[in-house]
Amino acid sequence: MQRSAPQTFDRVLSSMCTEPHPAARDAAERFLATNPGDPATYEEVAELESDAVDTLGEIAGLADPHGYVTSGGTEANVQAVRAARNRGRERTSNPNVVAPESAHFSFNKAADVLGVELRLVPTDADRRADLDAVRAAVDDDTVLVVGVAGSTEFGRVDPIPELVDIAHDAGAFCHVDAAWGGFLLPFTDRAWSFAHAPVDSLTIDPHKCGRACIPAGGLLFRERDGLDALAVETPYLESTSQATLTGTRSGAGVASAAAAMDALWPDGYRREYERAADLAAWFADELRGRDIDVVDPELPLVAANVPDAVFEALRAREWRVSRTGSDLLRVVCMPHVTRESLAAFLADLDAVR
Amino acid sequence: MQRSAPQTFDRVLSSMCTEPHPAARDAAERFLATNPGDPATYEEVAELESDAVDTLGEIAGLADPHGYVTSGGTEANVQAVRAARNRGRERTSNPNVVAPESAHFSFNKAADVLGVELRLVPTDADRRADLDAVRAAVDDDTVLVVGVAGSTEFGRVDPIPELVDIAHDAGAFCHVDAAWGGFLLPFTDRAWSFAHAPVDSLTIDPHKCGRACIPAGGLLFRERDGLDALAVETPYLESTSQATLTGTRSGAGVASAAAAMDALWPDGYRREYERAADLAAWFADELRGRDIDVVDPELPLVAANVPDAVFEALRAREWRVSRTGSDLLRVVCMPHVTRESLAAFLADLDAVR
Repeated sequence: MQRSAPQTFDRVLSSMCTEPHPAARDAAERFLATNPGDPATYEEVAELESDAVDTLGEIAGLADPHGYVTSGGTEANVQAVRAARNRGRERTSNPNVVAPESAHFSFNKAADVLGVELRLVPTDADRRADLDAVRAAVDDDTVLVVGVAGSTEFGRVDPIPELVDIAHDAGAFCHVDAAWGGFLLPFTDRAWSFAHAPVDSLTIDPHKCGRACIPAGGLLFRERDGLDALAVETPYLESTSQATLTGTRSGAGVASAAAAMDALWPDGYRREYERAADLAAWFADELRGRDIDVVDPELPLVAANVPDAVFEALRAREWRVSRTGSDLLRVVCMPHVTRESLAAFLADLDAVR
Repeated sequence: MQRSAPQTFDRVLSSMCTEPHPAARDAAERFLATNPGDPATYEEVAELESDAVDTLGEIAGLADPHGYVTSGGTEANVQAVRAARNRGRERTSNPNVVAPESAHFSFNKAADVLGVELRLVPTDADRRADLDAVRAAVDDDTVLVVGVAGSTEFGRVDPIPELVDIAHDAGAFCHVDAAWGGFLLPFTDRAWSFAHAPVDSLTIDPHKCGRACIPAGGLLFRERDGLDALAVETPYLESTSQATLTGTRSGAGVASAAAAMDALWPDGYRREYERAADLAAWFADELRGRDIDVVDPELPLVAANVPDAVFEALRAREWRVSRTGSDLLRVVCMPHVTRESLAAFLADLDAVR
């Protein structure tokens, strides 16, 4: 049975997913035929999910986390909006969510799915949520204010404690999307988590920097009520309610998340953060040295202004790169991205310019 | 690296999931680190998804299917309701969905998530949708009528062509939930699919009787408009919209679905249907011979009336069995359920009664 993966990662530079850690891959294979959505039948993987949630809580500074391993960051974000909408039902029948324009498009999806209004507000000159703009957009119908900790385009971290204050002053909840940043930020001095402010919910994805297998996202609530707001009664006598968005779920994803975090938290993740931060700084310098406009990286994500023709030529040379809404080339320094691969990329960049 | 699965299936009798086919497991392992949600980066698995959708169309009698491999039946059902709600927006701001009470609880979840009213109507004496009750519940605000092809509790198939007529007469769409039944029904004479009536959408899950790995559900639309009603704009220049409920998705699930269907459709699935049907008939007889009330199986699912104490005693003997809303023991004759395992179950049943 051939075990080699046809997908080589060395030319994948714009993805927020990466090669799973070997322990994660092994766990995924062992638990491939299990379903944590049926904990009465699949007890072992249900326990692993509980372990994974506890560790995610540890990473995010929350001693008593309420949550689960989702299908990904989109489900986590959609569910956070759904919980806030459901909890806000007595207060408003016309709910809105306020988020910076840098928020992931899963909030647009959440708005369509859940029937809430999404108010996207401008970011400031540093590409972070503009607090005055957020304040201006929040009103009595606001059920949720979103802060991003590691934005999709620029890897920026919003001023989370201030956003929590704005939300709570308005009677709304505050959700932080740390889908990508959650496994990096514990090693920085930024204020992004439950440890820094009374954040109400958090997205943090093991299958991004956590090195778990897809599908493994994470959703945490500070209060039990958050998770309970998602619960739908089931007819099963063994589990009488279900809070998840999906039904049958991947035991492989859950088990891989537990295994990856067991192997890597905290030292492995710390070492990787330091490697990636150095790499991103070096790569940004190399681009600047070639007179290419670069957005100064805050986290290990480099956004660069590269003409269309150059971009297309690089894709023609099999570089799996993509551009963001602002038309910038995005390079995410994930664990599989090395100095060697970026040096090769730079050589090709030089050849096609 | 230990490859043995800790989950043994021989005592799992109430699950609609099963051991993946070896080709499916192998494909899942090869594509474990791929994401069909990013088709520009992961081109090979994106093509496999296209193949899988085509084969699902073939199985369901739809020559030109529009759809995708979902995270499971719940996502497929939620998305079918969402598409109908979105397509019905001009017609009603107070949408309802009419379904038989035998419909899976994912429709209750869909109602909460999507803000639609769910009208559950009684089933008839044969445990199928009562057409008069459905007609009475449908009104001008109805956006979707649901038919079940292989119900969760009893494995019943609703009168699909009649339900489609009722739906269309009212200006509503008709969705068929064949999550479990979809891989069995092609080998019966029941009218359940696009081949029998102008059904608008269908749920059909490879990770149930299809023998794919979790997560692999299926959603098919007869018309392109159905899928388009789900599309949310993305800021990515490489794929400008996304119809799926999740973002990052499991390439393992998609690849395993393509591989399983490639190996098993149609002959392998036909042989399995025949084996399972014989087994269910034999098992029902064995229960009746023990004076246990049994719901006569239509598909290979046996529901039996067993006292609480007996049920608990069987679980204490490590039988992974569960009961339905009607308090009946449910045995689903999946590929891993054998005459040997059911004989052992009957021996334990005799011992504890």
